[in-house]
Amino acid sequence: MKILFLNGPNLNLLGQREPQTYGTETLADVEAKVRREASGMQVQVDFQQSNSEGELVTWVQKSKGHYDAIVINAGAYTHTSIAIRDAIAAAAVPTIEIHLSNIHAREQFRQHSFLAPVCRGQICGFGPYSYILGLRAAVNING
Amino acid sequence: MKILFLNGPNLNLLGQREPQTYGTETLADVEAKVRREASGMQVQVDFQQSNSEGELVTWVQKSKGHYDAIVINAGAYTHTSIAIRDAIAAAAVPTIEIHLSNIHAREQFRQHSFLAPVCRGQICGFGPYSYILGLRAAVNING
Amino acid sequence: MKILFLNGPNLNLLGQREPQTYGTETLADVEAKVRREASGMQVQVDFQQSNSEGELVTWVQKSKGHYDAIVINAGAYTHTSIAIRDAIAAAAVPTIEIHLSNIHAREQFRQHSFLAPVCRGQICGFGPYSYILGLRAAVNING
Amino acid sequence: MKILFLNGPNLNLLGQREPQTYGTETLADVEAKVRREASGMQVQVDFQQSNSEGELVTWVQKSKGHYDAIVINAGAYTHTSIAIRDAIAAAAVPTIEIHLSNIHAREQFRQHSFLAPVCRGQICGFGPYSYILGLRAAVNING
Amino acid sequence: MKILFLNGPNLNLLGQREPQTYGTETLADVEAKVRREASGMQVQVDFQQSNSEGELVTWVQKSKGHYDAIVINAGAYTHTSIAIRDAIAAAAVPTIEIHLSNIHAREQFRQHSFLAPVCRGQICGFGPYSYILGLRAAVNING
Amino acid sequence: MKILFLNGPNLNLLGQREPQTYGTETLADVEAKVRREASGMQVQVDFQQSNSEGELVTWVQKSKGHYDAIVINAGAYTHTSIAIRDAIAAAAVPTIEIHLSNIHAREQFRQHSFLAPVCRGQICGFGPYSYILGLRAAVNING
Amino acid sequence: MKILFLNGPNLNLLGQREPQTYGTETLADVEAKVRREASGMQVQVDFQQSNSEGELVTWVQKSKGHYDAIVINAGAYTHTSIAIRDAIAAAAVPTIEIHLSNIHAREQFRQHSFLAPVCRGQICGFGPYSYILGLRAAVNING
Amino acid sequence: MKILFLNGPNLNLLGQREPQTYGTETLADVEAKVRREASGMQVQVDFQQSNSEGELVTWVQKSKGHYDAIVINAGAYTHTSIAIRDAIAAAAVPTIEIHLSNIHAREQFRQHSFLAPVCRGQICGFGPYSYILGLRAAVNING
Amino acid sequence: MKILFLNGPNLNLLGQREPQTYGTETLADVEAKVRREASGMQVQVDFQQSNSEGELVTWVQKSKGHYDAIVINAGAYTHTSIAIRDAIAAAAVPTIEIHLSNIHAREQFRQHSFLAPVCRGQICGFGPYSYILGLRAAVNING
Amino acid sequence: MKILFLNGPNLNLLGQREPQTYGTETLADVEAKVRREASGMQVQVDFQQSNSEGELVTWVQKSKGHYDAIVINAGAYTHTSIAIRDAIAAAAVPTIEIHLSNIHAREQFRQHSFLAPVCRGQICGFGPYSYILGLRAAVNING
Amino acid sequence: MKILFLNGPNLNLLGQREPQTYGTETLADVEAKVRREASGMQVQVDFQQSNSEGELVTWVQKSKGHYDAIVINAGAYTHTSIAIRDAIAAAAVPTIEIHLSNIHAREQFRQHSFLAPVCRGQICGFGPYSYILGLRAAVNING
Amino acid sequence: MKILFLNGPNLNLLGQREPQTYGTETLADVEAKVRREASGMQVQVDFQQSNSEGELVTWVQKSKGHYDAIVINAGAYTHTSIAIRDAIAAAAVPTIEIHLSNIHAREQFRQHSFLAPVCRGQICGFGPYSYILGLRAAVNING
Repeated sequence: MKILFLNGPNLNLLGQREPQTYGTETLADVEAKVRREASGMQVQVDFQQSNSEGELVTWVQKSKGHYDAIVINAGAYTHTSIAIRDAIAAAAVPTIEIHLSNIHAREQFRQHSFLAPVCRGQICGFGPYSYILGLRAAVNING
Repeated sequence: MKILFLNGPNLNLLGQREPQTYGTETLADVEAKVRREASGMQVQVDFQQSNSEGELVTWVQKSKGHYDAIVINAGAYTHTSIAIRDAIAAAAVPTIEIHLSNIHAREQFRQHSFLAPVCRGQICGFGPYSYILGLRAAVNING
Repeated sequence: MKILFLNGPNLNLLGQREPQTYGTETLADVEAKVRREASGMQVQVDFQQSNSEGELVTWVQKSKGHYDAIVINAGAYTHTSIAIRDAIAAAAVPTIEIHLSNIHAREQFRQHSFLAPVCRGQICGFGPYSYILGLRAAVNING
Repeated sequence: MKILFLNGPNLNLLGQREPQTYGTETLADVEAKVRREASGMQVQVDFQQSNSEGELVTWVQKSKGHYDAIVINAGAYTHTSIAIRDAIAAAAVPTIEIHLSNIHAREQFRQHSFLAPVCRGQICGFGPYSYILGLRAAVNING
Repeated sequence: MKILFLNGPNLNLLGQREPQTYGTETLADVEAKVRREASGMQVQVDFQQSNSEGELVTWVQKSKGHYDAIVINAGAYTHTSIAIRDAIAAAAVPTIEIHLSNIHAREQFRQHSFLAPVCRGQICGFGPYSYILGLRAAVNING
Repeated sequence: MKILFLNGPNLNLLGQREPQTYGTETLADVEAKVRREASGMQVQVDFQQSNSEGELVTWVQKSKGHYDAIVINAGAYTHTSIAIRDAIAAAAVPTIEIHLSNIHAREQFRQHSFLAPVCRGQICGFGPYSYILGLRAAVNING
Repeated sequence: MKILFLNGPNLNLLGQREPQTYGTETLADVEAKVRREASGMQVQVDFQQSNSEGELVTWVQKSKGHYDAIVINAGAYTHTSIAIRDAIAAAAVPTIEIHLSNIHAREQFRQHSFLAPVCRGQICGFGPYSYILGLRAAVNING
Repeated sequence: MKILFLNGPNLNLLGQREPQTYGTETLADVEAKVRREASGMQVQVDFQQSNSEGELVTWVQKSKGHYDAIVINAGAYTHTSIAIRDAIAAAAVPTIEIHLSNIHAREQFRQHSFLAPVCRGQICGFGPYSYILGLRAAVNING
Repeated sequence: MKILFLNGPNLNLLGQREPQTYGTETLADVEAKVRREASGMQVQVDFQQSNSEGELVTWVQKSKGHYDAIVINAGAYTHTSIAIRDAIAAAAVPTIEIHLSNIHAREQFRQHSFLAPVCRGQICGFGPYSYILGLRAAVNING
Repeated sequence: MKILFLNGPNLNLLGQREPQTYGTETLADVEAKVRREASGMQVQVDFQQSNSEGELVTWVQKSKGHYDAIVINAGAYTHTSIAIRDAIAAAAVPTIEIHLSNIHAREQFRQHSFLAPVCRGQICGFGPYSYILGLRAAVNING
Repeated sequence: MKILFLNGPNLNLLGQREPQTYGTETLADVEAKVRREASGMQVQVDFQQSNSEGELVTWVQKSKGHYDAIVINAGAYTHTSIAIRDAIAAAAVPTIEIHLSNIHAREQFRQHSFLAPVCRGQICGFGPYSYILGLRAAVNING
Repeated sequence: MKILFLNGPNLNLLGQREPQTYGTETLADVEAKVRREASGMQVQVDFQQSNSEGELVTWVQKSKGHYDAIVINAGAYTHTSIAIRDAIAAAAVPTIEIHLSNIHAREQFRQHSFLAPVCRGQICGFGPYSYILGLRAAVNING
């Protein structure tokens, strides 16, 4: 089983950026944790990050036929990108939306997700552990 | 570690009710699955269900000092109950909101949660597996 | 044929409560009228009233397999209860929404019904005679 | 007792038009049913249909002094016509709004009625039987 | 192949009315252009214009069985008429909405069309050439 | 100087219709008053009334070249008719909107006029005297 | 008969201010015109202008018992002052709202009047002639 | 004179719950203070608390004929319960709405009260002293 | 202890103005009542009234260091004045908002207060007795 | 004559993506059809596709002086991109907005176009034939 | 060159008022800074402050012909005064809106300015230095 | 001191694009002006422009530790990009938002800025001189 973890804008700053909201672990730390957990489950994972909406669209498109699931933390694009939404709907790879912070407890504009309606589900608020839960959910969907 | 699973209105009908949306497992089936998973993690779980908003408020209140976390699927009250929200804020037991279905892909009025802003996070869309993810998230918070 | 008449909050005050809006007949008077009409149609009716949302949810749930139709005057819960809506959808017993007053001629917040979209139809504005029309509609659906 | 049944735009197509929503009976079939029921109640009924808002306004105006009640299925004009509303208020003949389909379970713009606030009540969702219920309600008001 | 061109209110004034918005060609000029183009495509076209909503409803209804497509420039009724929308849905003749001006670049209330959701598509902004494009689209649908 | 007075739906009922709002004078009484005032000013007036939106559109169109001004009490169509608005803009005859009642003190939906932005001005709230003021304003514009 | 003409902020600039919108006559010119017309009608008029909301409130209050009517052009305070509205309701002197320009054809925020619901009527769009019409309306009310 | 103090959901937690918002006095402390003040005024008071909307509805209904006034702190139900509103209107016992915190300085959804329009007045923001002010207001109304 | 009572626009008319809403006592009567009550509590009170927003702003500013509390009935400015709000926040003298009528049972625009969020609390609906309750609340805050 | 066809995000997936909505022809198929049609009209066409908003902005900018018209199917960016809108306005090359599906019959958020107000017109709902109609419209504008 | 600096309500409290938001410099300090900077630029400046909307209106009116530019910090009136807006438009002296704080980062109601659309530009968020920037902008406009 | 000037989409067209709105100076001209001014202030400046949202995000991220301030004219992304907003918040380099035109005097959708709440301040409406003011503000913040 192969799972793609997609990370949107500013997630490359994880660990440095507003640590009171996003914690002190870097994206590499998170990736390492996910890999550890995944290897115990016989699952192969790939990690990508981009600040570009178009690049995220392209990665989602290319996942078709190569991955069994996508776990996506689209960052700010969650709230503004119909293009990524359409890519998810088009690729038809089961996709899970995750967030480090509890977006429902933040600004009004962060509470709406354009992606969620075309994803299987949404997990938010558990810091880096949201990635682990996303991994488990992805495995369960394909289990 | 002790975790309380609270279930709101109509969840007693699980398995019979709109199976295309909610699946065919009963709440007892889900409880059994959760207990099995929890026992492997040395965690004790209690399950409650009520159709009454007031009773749910009371259970949340009483959880203080007796449970390390609440995992709540408040059903329809998710969208209408400020009373349960206030109880969660008052009890100050870490609480995780879960849903069987992906509420963000359903009617407009099911996309807003009064509870989420006072919960640690939200997990939705994975059917009965949302309960397992909720359990893992609860353990992780207290880990 | 068996039909359940469910009455929501404050309908126990019928006859005393704002008589210029709701008339001077009590709920018992209305029940008597309905029973008289029903007996002429060979239909058995049960009447219940509760001020509790949870109790109404439970009665709707239990109607499954015991009643051929529900005629519900949910009073104020018409406008606020997603829980009763979900119970009606779950029970899948044909349900008819009725009101004594013409809710479309009253305050803005009384013009929206959470229940109507999962009911067969809505009848409002005819005072106690709304119950008789509800009875006839219920019989017709099952006729 | 004389009752006028007014039918708005597209109701002349009844039976052919979207039968999954509106059924297979024609307006003539519905009229025949209503006449049968009315004759058993010693009530005289007239039936009119028009696609023109202005003509419906005129018929409502002329009903004054000639009919004891109006039963109106204004079709699409229900949601857009203040002119028919004003005519109903002006004529001051007791008026009952009916619909074949359950308008509260349809598109947002079909859920608001400009007519209902000046009618005695609203009946919707029972197919052709909405006309029979409208007849009975009209007789009851004058009874 | 037979195609009906329906024109709504004020289109009889074309050529005289606000020429900076609608151009200087009359409706007869436009009709002549369309006939010329259509005859080269072996298509028969009929042209109708009315200021009356009810008459437009009736023409749409009668198109059933007589025309292969409708091209409709409903003018102001585009934005206010649910009755014409219902007629289009009822007649089930493939219908194409056209406009001379680019309605999306005008007042807010001209940007919403009640008709578009039950039409095959919308063409606007090309002056009289919108009629030619509408003709071509209609032929293509039936091609 | 020639001035056209156009009256919309239900104004034919003036004097009988809700006299507490619209007074007891009939439209003929109002017309007589206007004629008296106009003859003293050497002005010729024509009076028309229709319940049909389309007919009002047509009369506005035809006023071009025949009248120096229109005084229009469009009744309910004031609030719903973009077609009449477009006709006024197209005819380009100076037009004055009048109302018997003070529409700004009535229901929300009567406070918005689709016609006012293409009229010279609006006069409302003075009962039949609104017609006299409309006449004077029309004369003044052309004076 | 005594009538008070109240003028709000910036009306002291009349004639100099945006002449394409408000014309070239000064407030003194308008006052002279009104006096001429009034003297022919045996009516005494007073003219006041203030840029201060509080002063306008006070003048309205003091009109009670001293004037038979108020004609008010409150300028920008029309759209923002509940205090002047309350003063008009409190003084209970018949009041007529006037405007030089057609406020319904201008910015959204100029289309709502806080004063109109407590005035007898509104006249707008006729330049200085709005004052003459306001005078006539005031005389007619007291006639 | 007898006055009923009704307390809604989570008020049983007073003193423990978010003390920075609600203070450290328990509901029993508040009750003692109110009793002390009331006894000096020769007034008898009863105190009730419930987490159940239906129970609060029932208590309001039963107050009729037994109490001269109700002082209600409905907590979260203030913002969601039309059922309690209807009970207050039905019981017709003079009712005063109170709150510990200044609800107008909190979240948007706490600023609207369904109860206030059917109460005599609202007092909020003075902590436990809101109860004393409510008592005094209730005595004054009956004085 | 010194307390400043500030009264906004139109409160100088108290007793004459819409007595069915505001009662028949004048502001001087109310002041006398408050002085009587205050003297029994060893509290000194000052009373001011102005129709001018700017003057009210200035009085609030000057209260700093001279008064222990402000009790303000800002009348219509409650709903429109950010300037008074800013003055209250700047002066930092504890302030209590009062109203004679129950603003939550009146027009929509009277239900929102710009002042309440920077006041300690709000008291409304008790007629002149709102002033006495305001006095008591002010004393309690400083007690 | 040279025309640029710009295609936005996910249009590279055409033919594979949700074929029930977008059909089975690939973008290359559509391009071939357009080229065939264009060559018969002596028109040269270029085709570009990008998932990147910035790249689309750049292509629009560069079209100035090189193309006589742009036909743009901006996909999801239609609804979110003010940057592309600004580029179209800046380049001042006549631009035509096209869509494969009838966007007015889809989700609310797909019915608003940021681009349409700066385009000449909009064509939607005709599948790949929308491209042919766009081509013809572009030629006609320059004809 | 002469520039008028106008300061609205509560700016006389600068330095004392909420220093964490507005800093500790008084308005006199700011004026001194501006004068120093202006004298180096050969520019004459006048400073005015008022809590009264009407007085600010009058000062703007009088600036015509006496000043080359206005720099206005209208404080709370920025968000509520159409009267000052109209005065700026009428005076036609180039005007620059400034604020000490970043109004776009504050409450919703402070983010809208009625003045900005008739000003040349807006500068906010730089504390007293906003005045220096306003001065420079004013000089540049006239440069 | 080092300051980064970031320019968003379409600013590369400055001087050619809608010169009546944006003037005739090119971005290179503006850059030259800024460099001249900066060199006199001993400040080093860098200029970047991109049409890509992702590239702007990356440049903001990289500014951390290399620049003392950012002056950003994000063009159309001002109104749609939460990603750039998050980057500014994450980088924590003091940032100043500037615009050539007065965005508050343009279309509704250009009046809201996602960036402003995380910037120090906003300067708009002064054409190229907005850049000079931005430079001065940036120096002042670091001064």
